[in-house]
Amino acid sequence: MREWLVHIRRGEYSSLQTQIREALVSAILDGQLSREEPIPSTRKMAKTLGVSRNTVVLAYQGLLDDGYLMARERSGYYVADKALESVAVQKLTGKPKPVKDRVDWERRLTQSPAAQENVTKPLDWQSYEFPFIYGQVDHTLFPLAEWRDCARQALGKKWLGSWTNDTWASDDPLLVEQIRRRILPRRGIMANDDEILITLGAQNALYLLTSLLVDSSTRVAMEEPGYPDVRNIFRLRTNHVALAPVDEKGLTLGEALNSSQLVFTTPSHQFPTTVTMPLERRMELLRRASEKNFIIIEDDYEFETNYVNEPCPALKSLDDEGRVVYVGSLSKTLFPGLRLGFMVGPKKLIAEARALRRLMVRHAPNNNQRTAALFLSLGHHDTLIRRLHRAYRARWEVMGEALNTYMPKASRNPSFGGTSFWVKGPAHIDSDTLGRAAAVRGILIEPGRIDFGVQNPPRNFFRLAFSSIDEKKIEPGIRRLADVIAEQ
Amino acid sequence: MREWLVHIRRGEYSSLQTQIREALVSAILDGQLSREEPIPSTRKMAKTLGVSRNTVVLAYQGLLDDGYLMARERSGYYVADKALESVAVQKLTGKPKPVKDRVDWERRLTQSPAAQENVTKPLDWQSYEFPFIYGQVDHTLFPLAEWRDCARQALGKKWLGSWTNDTWASDDPLLVEQIRRRILPRRGIMANDDEILITLGAQNALYLLTSLLVDSSTRVAMEEPGYPDVRNIFRLRTNHVALAPVDEKGLTLGEALNSSQLVFTTPSHQFPTTVTMPLERRMELLRRASEKNFIIIEDDYEFETNYVNEPCPALKSLDDEGRVVYVGSLSKTLFPGLRLGFMVGPKKLIAEARALRRLMVRHAPNNNQRTAALFLSLGHHDTLIRRLHRAYRARWEVMGEALNTYMPKASRNPSFGGTSFWVKGPAHIDSDTLGRAAAVRGILIEPGRIDFGVQNPPRNFFRLAFSSIDEKKIEPGIRRLADVIAEQ
Repeated sequence: MREWLVHIRRGEYSSLQTQIREALVSAILDGQLSREEPIPSTRKMAKTLGVSRNTVVLAYQGLLDDGYLMARERSGYYVADKALESVAVQKLTGKPKPVKDRVDWERRLTQSPAAQENVTKPLDWQSYEFPFIYGQVDHTLFPLAEWRDCARQALGKKWLGSWTNDTWASDDPLLVEQIRRRILPRRGIMANDDEILITLGAQNALYLLTSLLVDSSTRVAMEEPGYPDVRNIFRLRTNHVALAPVDEKGLTLGEALNSSQLVFTTPSHQFPTTVTMPLERRMELLRRASEKNFIIIEDDYEFETNYVNEPCPALKSLDDEGRVVYVGSLSKTLFPGLRLGFMVGPKKLIAEARALRRLMVRHAPNNNQRTAALFLSLGHHDTLIRRLHRAYRARWEVMGEALNTYMPKASRNPSFGGTSFWVKGPAHIDSDTLGRAAAVRGILIEPGRIDFGVQNPPRNFFRLAFSSIDEKKIEPGIRRLADVIAEQ
Repeated sequence: MREWLVHIRRGEYSSLQTQIREALVSAILDGQLSREEPIPSTRKMAKTLGVSRNTVVLAYQGLLDDGYLMARERSGYYVADKALESVAVQKLTGKPKPVKDRVDWERRLTQSPAAQENVTKPLDWQSYEFPFIYGQVDHTLFPLAEWRDCARQALGKKWLGSWTNDTWASDDPLLVEQIRRRILPRRGIMANDDEILITLGAQNALYLLTSLLVDSSTRVAMEEPGYPDVRNIFRLRTNHVALAPVDEKGLTLGEALNSSQLVFTTPSHQFPTTVTMPLERRMELLRRASEKNFIIIEDDYEFETNYVNEPCPALKSLDDEGRVVYVGSLSKTLFPGLRLGFMVGPKKLIAEARALRRLMVRHAPNNNQRTAALFLSLGHHDTLIRRLHRAYRARWEVMGEALNTYMPKASRNPSFGGTSFWVKGPAHIDSDTLGRAAAVRGILIEPGRIDFGVQNPPRNFFRLAFSSIDEKKIEPGIRRLADVIAEQ
């Protein structure tokens, strides 16, 4: 028996049987097993690998059933002829010629999104001791068993049609219903089904709206500092992106807004400062929108996280002229890897967004839409929101105190919620440099330069999030970060 | 006990316990249960519903655990106070005012995708007796148990990070590896990981490429008849869409190509005629591309379905100048509701497409990427392809014979594969009218007018697909369709 054939790693993600199958399929399809030589008997394989023979028998049986192996009487198991039917045309046509890139791609590209600066975060953030990283999910708070149960139900035979089919421009009606009945009323929003569109995360909603409403002559305004991804989306379409400063009440209503046709804002917890826009300013913003005839995109991320007051109703719920398009996300409460969000707007606009989404991606994957619908309908989402609210509130308090204790000179905006603090460090600090120095000490922070759209942004701001860090880690993490700052 | 509280439907998709939970959660969150009145005891509820008491106890226990109910000693179960914490801000702010739409959306929209004509198919196609519908999946051929098993594994605790996290611009490395090792070699394509991008279906790949390579001055060419969705995408960006006629060898290499910077083609099985471009024309197309310096998008859908010859290697595998961008889909073999596809191209272009995808949707949902990667790595996808190939080949033969028998005067291009026939009906037929008349008789066909881009398209073409119809239904379906045609 060839030793390299199967390697078993105990404690691996997959079962032993799965590992044996995967290794044999791989060897067969890669042509590493000849058709003449029998593969090891189940007894021998079991002995070599030190696993129960039953495990090997089940793996072989699956491969027999699926036509990878065949059994010859008294002679054992062989690779089946038909298993190789589908292998590599490559062998017929020989090795591909080396490619000489003859196309001048620079000249062909009508836009270059890769040239834009983006937030970069390490994919292995979980290996840092103090991950003050933003926008990820804390696995200890997520009801994994309930989610898996809903996923299992959603993949059931009875619902086969609804998750396997291409449904073109349509959304899962069960999920639309849950959003309309469970999520929007909390924000004071009443909507009909044809005013709601499911998107691939809030990001996708913002991209669709920009594609529909912005061309090279459109003047848009957004908060400064503000959400860098939306600034990047705007800047791909127009050079007229006005930056409206943020104060302790959020977006300021200055000159920038008056000449704009479209205004982007995050009133619940301003991104990245987390300040909440009070009701009076919301009303004033709506009056201004009416007077100057602009449209507002309201990105209502993290609306569930107000620790001090009652949450303020969404701008959309106060809008009686149909000027506000509401963008929501399930990423902050479910998980961001799922890519599910939604937008609410006038029927006419939603119909156009739906047609464009059809061309862009068709629709969000149906299995995930159905799983989320079940999760919402069984009340798991509400339970999760309550749990997150309790945990985040506790972390918010601990972090607030730790910042007062260890960084008394760092200032920050008053905030009542969110999942992060926006910190203004000492003037001489460069938060990019600080971020690198902190990472070496096991601390992940989010340098704030990227959140500014101006040419020479201030460099001493940074963001500390608490959605993915254990409560007990917060105090020691802030203490250590203060040391790193002192060394700058 | 209020009778309306819980309705049990036996044979429903969900378990009885789930149905009880859902009904109670719904009543609580919608405010239909007062806090003063106890909810029925488990014994009473079980009796009223005619289900086992244990079922009710388990449902109630889950609601207690999750904070929806509370138990008061000797007095029974009540709605928990905290369950209502999160309910509707709406009640604080009163009923929303009626909205008067003050925005002239027509004037605001920079494009109007909803005005484009699109393929429309009934969502309830499964209720038709003879669904000759294209692009759906036959549930009887899909290995549901294996898919569910992979989904279960992908949602496992050990992989929690990889499916819950936002991974920004990255793809699941396991899926990229499977595409590189298992799928591309069959088409003769060798690629590095940074030359592969996972997309939300082939549709998303085409949208990304058009966004990057086409602006209002770009001249593009595509097949006529051809894929309507790609024509719609092109036409949103440019008015210069040249239509190159298709003959029995696919795309013709006439004048339209010479003045174009970008050419879209479906060489494996031309969409919608299903003709295969022979090797000689592929080589000639590549020579022309080099001479005239244009880029080719190769949409290689359904490459696995060649029933007569060996599959022809992909255009991409013959390209030694880096001019061909390859677009593939997992929709035709897995299921289209999953929305998974990929593109292969030069590193520079893929980096730009990745940056744009980040802004558009971030990435394909991670749970589905991981599930598909496992499904591929365990050989289930190869098994499925062999099964589909056998089933489709048999249906292709049956349908070919039925067409010869019942519609001897209808002509069609020679074809060797695909999942449909492209039929030219008698000259006086209008396939839109025919489609409606056929639907009344339980037959779904796809009228072909939409596949033409010219102003006054021929109206007597239609498509008959066999991917979603049982083999035994084909002959009687064609026979009945011939009757309907005779009545036109």
